[in-house]
Amino acid sequence: MCLEMRTVEWDNFSGEVRMIDQRLLPTELRIVAYRDYRQVASAIRDMVVRGAPAIGAAAGFGLALAANQSSSQSRERLLADLESAADELRAARPTAANLDWALNRILGKIADADAQTQELKQLVLSEAQRIADEDIAINQQMARYGAELIKDGDTVIHHCNTGALATVDWGTALGVIRMAHEQGKRIHVLVDETRPRLQGARLTAWELTQYKIPYDIISDGAAGFFLHSGQVQKVFFGGDRMAANGDVANKIGTYMLALAAHDNRVPVYCVVPTSTIDLSLEHGGMIPIEERSPREVLDLQVDGHAVMPDGASARNPAFDVTPHRLLTAVVTEKGVIYPPLMENISMILSKGISG
Amino acid sequence: MCLEMRTVEWDNFSGEVRMIDQRLLPTELRIVAYRDYRQVASAIRDMVVRGAPAIGAAAGFGLALAANQSSSQSRERLLADLESAADELRAARPTAANLDWALNRILGKIADADAQTQELKQLVLSEAQRIADEDIAINQQMARYGAELIKDGDTVIHHCNTGALATVDWGTALGVIRMAHEQGKRIHVLVDETRPRLQGARLTAWELTQYKIPYDIISDGAAGFFLHSGQVQKVFFGGDRMAANGDVANKIGTYMLALAAHDNRVPVYCVVPTSTIDLSLEHGGMIPIEERSPREVLDLQVDGHAVMPDGASARNPAFDVTPHRLLTAVVTEKGVIYPPLMENISMILSKGISG
Repeated sequence: MCLEMRTVEWDNFSGEVRMIDQRLLPTELRIVAYRDYRQVASAIRDMVVRGAPAIGAAAGFGLALAANQSSSQSRERLLADLESAADELRAARPTAANLDWALNRILGKIADADAQTQELKQLVLSEAQRIADEDIAINQQMARYGAELIKDGDTVIHHCNTGALATVDWGTALGVIRMAHEQGKRIHVLVDETRPRLQGARLTAWELTQYKIPYDIISDGAAGFFLHSGQVQKVFFGGDRMAANGDVANKIGTYMLALAAHDNRVPVYCVVPTSTIDLSLEHGGMIPIEERSPREVLDLQVDGHAVMPDGASARNPAFDVTPHRLLTAVVTEKGVIYPPLMENISMILSKGISG
Repeated sequence: MCLEMRTVEWDNFSGEVRMIDQRLLPTELRIVAYRDYRQVASAIRDMVVRGAPAIGAAAGFGLALAANQSSSQSRERLLADLESAADELRAARPTAANLDWALNRILGKIADADAQTQELKQLVLSEAQRIADEDIAINQQMARYGAELIKDGDTVIHHCNTGALATVDWGTALGVIRMAHEQGKRIHVLVDETRPRLQGARLTAWELTQYKIPYDIISDGAAGFFLHSGQVQKVFFGGDRMAANGDVANKIGTYMLALAAHDNRVPVYCVVPTSTIDLSLEHGGMIPIEERSPREVLDLQVDGHAVMPDGASARNPAFDVTPHRLLTAVVTEKGVIYPPLMENISMILSKGISG
């Protein structure tokens, strides 16, 4: 990011997790600090921090807090405390694969370690720190692969926020766009505002302003107009959980965007680290979809007035599943994966280059 | 409507056009009155009144004001004044076919009339009044045809506002839903909020509350989730201009909604009076699409704070074109038209039952 800090980071001096409170951007840049893993679970649930990779890193540091909070003197009791904290962190947001992935990686590491409590606690923190550090390197590797797909002069549509704020730093889909821009390619971004939480209008627009990449915010429903009228060359988004066959759960609205791109033969690229791919799920129908508070839809004002009638009700699924048939390719840190996705995802993951 | 007045009406006592200022709903129900046709043109442009049939009726009354305002003593000068006023009214919103249609109908009527100025002025008003009165009857006839398509227990998605507020009274697509409800069918409406102007969340939710029809507001991007998960039996929307082949321009976001319904084999019904069908245009690519101010996208607050960064830019096409291949049928006051649409639209219009 163009900031002095990462989206989520560990403060060695205070032993706290620090993060940017993304609910207040772009109006205010406020940093919050937590000493209790339960606060981190709440921060994930309330979307102080969001974006699958950032959530994974936050959960890892949450587990490091839980380790510090545990007064257990035995290895077994410490492991039990950590399992219990992990369950609480996992439940904060059910759809993001990286949350499970980060917690399982840390728990696996300490289960294998032949060490006593103090050393194990240190191990939890160092593994959480490694996950955070690796996230940036992985994003930049994805960005280099993905940037090859962008041509000088392209206009692209981007959904939700997948930038530095959605990760520890740099970003996934927006990281690709940023890399292409840094390579000197002229690129224009149509920013889906991404109702109901407006991560596009709030966060992506804010990041693009900092990177000096030209953009226009559009209503989510306007993407079809721009795709049909030949003004868009590519569509980019991230993912919260990808099944083994390439079906991907991402921010609500992604499926309709991918459909409109497909209907107009505009390529659709999903940019995810391999930690977002959940091989235990055969297809997208098995991905748990979180439904959030209707207030996220209803609490909106124009000219200082509420828009919705008093007592109005709403439904608010936070994600939808884009079927793999609509994806032109999946960009990962191990390379760009083309169809048939099931086969090629399996092949690239079995290479085992990274953790 | 459940109000004492029509959306747009002529006040014989004062010689004014009165309309509900729809920009203030649901916070405030304010009635505005105009004596100058230029004010009516502004009201159409600024969306005090919106919805293709309501715009048509408003333009008709605007022309009646122009007739009253004209001091011409000769038939020729009066006709020239009316042509000039009609041009100004027409330019207020380029996409809605009913605007052209209503003005052309009145101008045609007086061009054919063998009468002098005072009588011609009266003729303009009586024809405008006839258009307004007929609109209600036409809507109710469409609603009877359309209601046969709805089954007891259906959940339907509805886009934008097509109710009493979009017409002189009763409504087009929402009129169909209302008729089915009055026939005793249980029906649940998923209300697309319809960014950027939020006509669904503001106006459709307000009307449904009055009609006691259960509903939930959803983000426009969430329609795909509900369609894919089998929770929706039908999709209904109106239209601003339909070409001869059935391609239809409607509120931005309609195309993506129709695509998502089609992808999940959910029937898609477009409900329009035949006055919305423009046989002079072969296909939807010929329909002029209005692009409105970016402020409609950018001026949004949550918790009293602006959402978009200072200096953010936006694009704001107000309509998109849904290709006829995505429509299951078109509901008109002359019956339900099934594919092949070009052939069957031409056949049903040539019957010449109504004006």
